Amino acid sequence: SVNPDLASERQTPSFSVEKLTAWLDGGAEHTRIRRAVVEAIDRDPVFSRENQYFQSQNERYEAAVRKSVHLQKKMHEMGWTENGPEFKYIYRALSGDIAFLLHRIFMRSISMLGSDKQIAKWIPLASQYQLIGSYAQTELGHGTYLQGLETTAVFDIATQEFILNTPKISAMKWWPGDMGRSATHTVVFAQLYVHGKCYGVHPFIVQIRSLQDHSLCPGISAGDIGPKMNFEHVDNGYLMLQNVRIPRENMLNKFCEVQPDGTYVRRGSQKINYFTMTTVRISLMSDEVITPLMKACTIAIRYSVVRRQSKLEPGEQEAKILDYQTQQEKLLPQLAAAYAFHSINNYLEELFDKGYREIQRRNFDTLPELHAFSSGFKALITQHCTAAVEICLRACGGHGYSSLSGLPSLYTKILASCIYEGENTILLLQTARFLIKCFMAASAGQSVPPSVTYLAAVKPGKCPAKNKLDFLRPDIYTEAYQHMAVRLVSSTAAKLQNLIQSGVKKHEAWNRCTVQLAQAAKAHCHYITVKNFAETVEKLETKAGIQKIMKHLCDLFALHGIFSNAGDFLHDGYISGAQMDMVTASYLDLLPVIRKDAVPLVDAFDFTDKTLNSALGSYDGQVYQRLYEWAQKSPTNKQMSPAYERYLKPLLHNTLSKL
Amino acid sequence: SVNPDLASERQTPSFSVEKLTAWLDGGAEHTRIRRAVVEAIDRDPVFSRENQYFQSQNERYEAAVRKSVHLQKKMHEMGWTENGPEFKYIYRALSGDIAFLLHRIFMRSISMLGSDKQIAKWIPLASQYQLIGSYAQTELGHGTYLQGLETTAVFDIATQEFILNTPKISAMKWWPGDMGRSATHTVVFAQLYVHGKCYGVHPFIVQIRSLQDHSLCPGISAGDIGPKMNFEHVDNGYLMLQNVRIPRENMLNKFCEVQPDGTYVRRGSQKINYFTMTTVRISLMSDEVITPLMKACTIAIRYSVVRRQSKLEPGEQEAKILDYQTQQEKLLPQLAAAYAFHSINNYLEELFDKGYREIQRRNFDTLPELHAFSSGFKALITQHCTAAVEICLRACGGHGYSSLSGLPSLYTKILASCIYEGENTILLLQTARFLIKCFMAASAGQSVPPSVTYLAAVKPGKCPAKNKLDFLRPDIYTEAYQHMAVRLVSSTAAKLQNLIQSGVKKHEAWNRCTVQLAQAAKAHCHYITVKNFAETVEKLETKAGIQKIMKHLCDLFALHGIFSNAGDFLHDGYISGAQMDMVTASYLDLLPVIRKDAVPLVDAFDFTDKTLNSALGSYDGQVYQRLYEWAQKSPTNKQMSPAYERYLKPLLHNTLSKL
Repeated sequence: SVNPDLASERQTPSFSVEKLTAWLDGGAEHTRIRRAVVEAIDRDPVFSRENQYFQSQNERYEAAVRKSVHLQKKMHEMGWTENGPEFKYIYRALSGDIAFLLHRIFMRSISMLGSDKQIAKWIPLASQYQLIGSYAQTELGHGTYLQGLETTAVFDIATQEFILNTPKISAMKWWPGDMGRSATHTVVFAQLYVHGKCYGVHPFIVQIRSLQDHSLCPGISAGDIGPKMNFEHVDNGYLMLQNVRIPRENMLNKFCEVQPDGTYVRRGSQKINYFTMTTVRISLMSDEVITPLMKACTIAIRYSVVRRQSKLEPGEQEAKILDYQTQQEKLLPQLAAAYAFHSINNYLEELFDKGYREIQRRNFDTLPELHAFSSGFKALITQHCTAAVEICLRACGGHGYSSLSGLPSLYTKILASCIYEGENTILLLQTARFLIKCFMAASAGQSVPPSVTYLAAVKPGKCPAKNKLDFLRPDIYTEAYQHMAVRLVSSTAAKLQNLIQSGVKKHEAWNRCTVQLAQAAKAHCHYITVKNFAETVEKLETKAGIQKIMKHLCDLFALHGIFSNAGDFLHDGYISGAQMDMVTASYLDLLPVIRKDAVPLVDAFDFTDKTLNSALGSYDGQVYQRLYEWAQKSPTNKQMSPAYERYLKPLLHNTLSKL
Repeated sequence: SVNPDLASERQTPSFSVEKLTAWLDGGAEHTRIRRAVVEAIDRDPVFSRENQYFQSQNERYEAAVRKSVHLQKKMHEMGWTENGPEFKYIYRALSGDIAFLLHRIFMRSISMLGSDKQIAKWIPLASQYQLIGSYAQTELGHGTYLQGLETTAVFDIATQEFILNTPKISAMKWWPGDMGRSATHTVVFAQLYVHGKCYGVHPFIVQIRSLQDHSLCPGISAGDIGPKMNFEHVDNGYLMLQNVRIPRENMLNKFCEVQPDGTYVRRGSQKINYFTMTTVRISLMSDEVITPLMKACTIAIRYSVVRRQSKLEPGEQEAKILDYQTQQEKLLPQLAAAYAFHSINNYLEELFDKGYREIQRRNFDTLPELHAFSSGFKALITQHCTAAVEICLRACGGHGYSSLSGLPSLYTKILASCIYEGENTILLLQTARFLIKCFMAASAGQSVPPSVTYLAAVKPGKCPAKNKLDFLRPDIYTEAYQHMAVRLVSSTAAKLQNLIQSGVKKHEAWNRCTVQLAQAAKAHCHYITVKNFAETVEKLETKAGIQKIMKHLCDLFALHGIFSNAGDFLHDGYISGAQMDMVTASYLDLLPVIRKDAVPLVDAFDFTDKTLNSALGSYDGQVYQRLYEWAQKSPTNKQMSPAYERYLKPLLHNTLSKL
C-alpha cells in the first residue's frame, strides 16, 4: 500500500541505501543496535507520541514525566545502561520528549564541581531518582554574562550557613528546566560573600521542595515560567530565594571552599569546567540540530514526490512538485547540508574526544582552539539547520503549516538551539577573537593551531576555473572558500588595527567591527565544513555507489554556499562574474541529478514512522489519508462546538423561516 | 513608573513623534479616529486578549466567536459602520483575533459572482448573521492550481438539481476558515458537469449544517482540520460531499448559468473576478504583514534598551544591548523595512484604487501590470517581513522565545502569509513572466507599462560613487538597484532564449530558468520599493525633523539591501569591491545615528499595551516585573503538578531518611 508516486522513486537508486545507513551510523553493527532500541521504544505504548500534537502544556509535561519514570524500568528490563552502546539511541528514539534532562546536568555538575564527600552523598540519591535535581544558573536579567548574576550567598559564621537571597526581581532564577514543577533540589549559582567581600559566582546545592509532600520549602517561591514556542514538555521554572539557609557543606567545594572561620580557599584548575561547557555545545549538535534537519528533509522530500500540482507541460499529468526547479532548489541544498553537518559533527566529536584525553593528561594547549571550534560551529550549524527546517516547512505549503506535518514542532524546537548554550552572535564573536589573535600571530611569523595555519598563507591570486565543470573539483571550490575566509579575517583585522591606530579605544573599535567579525567567523567555519566534507567523500569506499552520490551532495553544498554568498567571493575578484555564472550553471545542473536519488537519500536516515510522527512524511506516502485520519482525532472534533449553544444559536434561530 | 532606561531614550528625539504618527496614519484626523476605536476596544473586557497565551485551541475559538458576536453590538452601540472611517481600525485594534472572516469572503463572492436575485436572497441573511458562511475552494490535493480541483457538481435535469460529490480523498475541501465548526453554508468550487461534459470550475452555495440544531446536513462530513502553527482561533475545516443535492438556483450565475434544459450559458467578462483576487493580496499587507512587523520592532527595540548585558568597556556599567553594533545590525534594518513597506503599501493601495475605477469603466489595460504588482509585492513583502519578525524574536534571546513576549505568536502567524493567497514562489514567477514579456517587447521597441519602462533603458556603465558619502545619495543607490534589476531580467531572458534556440522545449526551458526568474522578480520589486521610499522622503515636509529621520531610514533600507545582496551588485562590476566597502562603511555608520531615535521611531507606531500584549514591549518597559506577573497566571501554576502524585511521589517517598 505504498503510494505509487513514492514507490517509483525507490526503484533505481544509484547506491545501496542500506550501506549508506550503515555509514551514517558508523558501521552496520551500530545500525543493528539502533534499530533494536527504536523497535523496543516504538512498540511500547507508554512512549507513544501519537497524540502529541493535540496535547496541552500540562498534558505534555505529565507525559514526559511518565515516560522518564518508565524509561528507568525499561532500561533495567532491556539491560540498557548509561554506559552501554544503546544509550545514545534512546534519546533519539524518544525524540527528546522526556523529562529530567536537567537532573542529568545537576548530577554532572556535582560530579565535576563537588568534593568526593559531596559526590558520595548526592550522586547515589540522584541516580536512583530519590531526589529530582535542576541547575539554576540563568536569571531573569542575566544569561550570557555570568559575572553579572545577582543572586547572593552570604556566609554566616555564627551558624556555619550560607544565606541565599534574590535581592531584586532581575535576580530571580528563570528558565531552568525541571525546576518549575518537578525538582526537589537545584544547584544555585550565586555571588559568594564572606565578611562583606564578594568572591564571585559559586555553586550551591539548595533544596527547594519538600520530600514529604512536594510543597515549596520556607523562603522559596518557584513555579513554571509559562508557555514557550515549544518545549511544552519541560517545566522551565522560576525561583526566588528569601533568606534561605543552607549548611556550609552545600557549597560545591572541589575547587573553592569557605572554611569554618570564613577563610576562602581556591585550589586546582577550573579550566576543566570551562572545557565541559565547551563540549556540551558539540554534544548537542547531533540530537538537537542535525537529526531534526534530517527529519524535516525526510518529510518535505517524501511529500514533494507525492504532491502533484500544476503541469510542467500542457496536456501532461500534473507534475510531482519535486520536478520543479524551484522546489529542488529549496530542498536539495538542505539535504546536502544535513550530510555536510553530519560529517563535520563526526569530525568535531572525534576532535573533542581527543582533546578530552589530552586535558585529562593536564595538557591544556588545545583548549583555545577547541573553544573556538565549539563556539563557531555551534553558531553556524544551529543557524543553518534552523533556516533549513524553516525552508522545508514552507516548501510544503499549507500542509507544512499544519501541526500534523510535524514540521512546525521541529521548527519551533530547533529555533531554540540558536539561543541556548550561548547566543549565536556572542559565540561567533568568541571564535572571531581567536581568529584575529591567530591571524596576528601568523602574520608575525608565530606558530598557530593547525586549524588556522591557512590564515598565514594569504595568496592574492584568482580562481583558476575555466568552465563550469571545473567547479565540480573540490580543490577549486575548497580553495575559493579558503581564500574568502582569509580575506574576511584579514580585512577585518586591518579595519580593527586602523581604528585603534586612529585613536579609537580598543573596546569601541572592537564593537565597531563586530558585524564583520561575526561574518569572518562564519566564513571560517563554512570553509572548514566544506573542506571536511570533501575530505570525507575522498576517503569513502567507492563501492555501492555511495561515494558518487556523496560527491554530488558535497558539490551541491559547496556551490550552493557560493551561489548564496556570491558577494563574498566576487568582492576582490577572486571569482569573476563570468565564473560566478559557471558556478550557477553547475549548481543548477546538480539539482536534477540529486533529485533522482532524493527519496533514497532520505530513506537512508532510517526514521520509523513513529519516530517521525508526521502525516506528510510517512514511509508509505499515504499523505492525504493520514491527514484526514489524524485531523478527526483532534479534540476540537470530539464535541459539539462549545460556541454554538452560547453564541451561534441565538443568531441562527429564526433563519429557517426565511430560507 | 517608566523604566529609566527606557525613559532616557525618549528625552531628545530628533523629530516630533506625534507628527510622525499622524503621517503614518495619513493625517491627524485619522489618528484621532484610530485612537478612539482602540480606546473603546481596549476598555471592553470582552475583547481582552490578556489570557491569550494560556488558552487552548478550543478556548481561542470560542473567544473569537464571542468577540465577533459582541463586535456587532459594539459597532451598533458606537455608531461604527462597515463603510465608516472607523472600520479599518477595528481589525487592527482586535489584532485580527476574531471569527467569521470567511463569512465576509462568502458575502463578497456572492456579491461578485451572484445574480441580483441571488444577492437579494442571501446577502440580507448573511449580513445579519442569520447564517454563517464560508468559502470552500482549496482541497487536500489542490491549492494553487485551481483547474485541478476534483470536487464535482453534476446537473440532474430530472430534478433540476446539482449533485455534489467528493470523488476521492484528495478532493476533500481542506483549510476553509469558519468551516470546521461554525458555518451553516459555504460556497463550494466544483467542476461542473452537464450531460457528461465538463465545463470547469464553478461556485455553488451549499448548506452544510442544520439551522435548527447545527448538526451536519445529509451527505456532509465536516470538521476541524486540527492544530496549526497559529490561527488557533480559526476553525479551519474539512468538508466531504456525498451526493449532496442543491437546487439549480444555487449555482452563482452572474457570469455563467445552466438553464433548465441543461444549456450552458456564459456571459459578461470574468476579468473583474480575476482582479478581485489580485486586490485581496494587497489589502492583506497592512494588517497581516506590515503591522505585525511594526509590533515586533516595537517589542524588540524597547526590550533592547531595557536589557543590559555584559560591558562595552571594562569597569563601566553593563551596556544596553542596543548599544552593541550586532544588535543594531539585527534590529534597525527591520525598523527601516517597516517604514519602507508602509510607504510602498500606501503607493500600491492608491494604484489599486485607481485601477479599480478604471476597470469599472471597462478599461482593462492596466490589469497585467496590476497583477504583476500584486503578485511580486505580496511575495517580497511577506517574505521580508516574516524574516524580519524572526530576527526580532531571536534578537531578544530566551525572553523572545517565551510566548509572553508576544513574538512567537507574531512569527507563527505572519509565516502563514508566505503561503496563503498564492504561494510566494509561484507568485514571483507570475511577476517574472510579466517582466520577461515586457523586456522582450521593450527590446523590440514596443511600448510597455510605466513601471517597467526602465527595462528598455539598459545602460552598461559603472556606479559613479567616489566615497562613502556618495552612497547616501538616493540617485546613486536607486540607480544601482535599477541596474541590478535590469541585469537580472535581461540575463535570464537571454538564458531562456538560448535554451529555446538550442532546441529545449519552451516549458522545460522555463522550468530550468525559474530559480533565476524568481530572483529577477524579487530584484524588480526591491528596486521599486527603494525608489518609492526615496521619492516619498523627497516629498515629505521638512519640518519637525521627520524628513531627516526618514531619509536616514531610507538610506539604511537601501544600503542594507546592497550589503546583504552584494553579489547581485558586484556581479558585472557595476559596483566594485572598493565601492562595496564604501557601502558597508556608510551602512554601518548609519546604525548608531538611527539607534539614537530607535525608541521614538517605534513609539510613533502608537500601539497600546493591550494591542501589543507583550511582556517585553510595554510602554513603561517594566519587563521583568511583567514577565513574572504573567508567568504566575499560567494554568500550570494553578494546581499541584499532576505528575507528582502519580509518578514523583513513589520515587521520592523514602528519601527523607537518607538525607
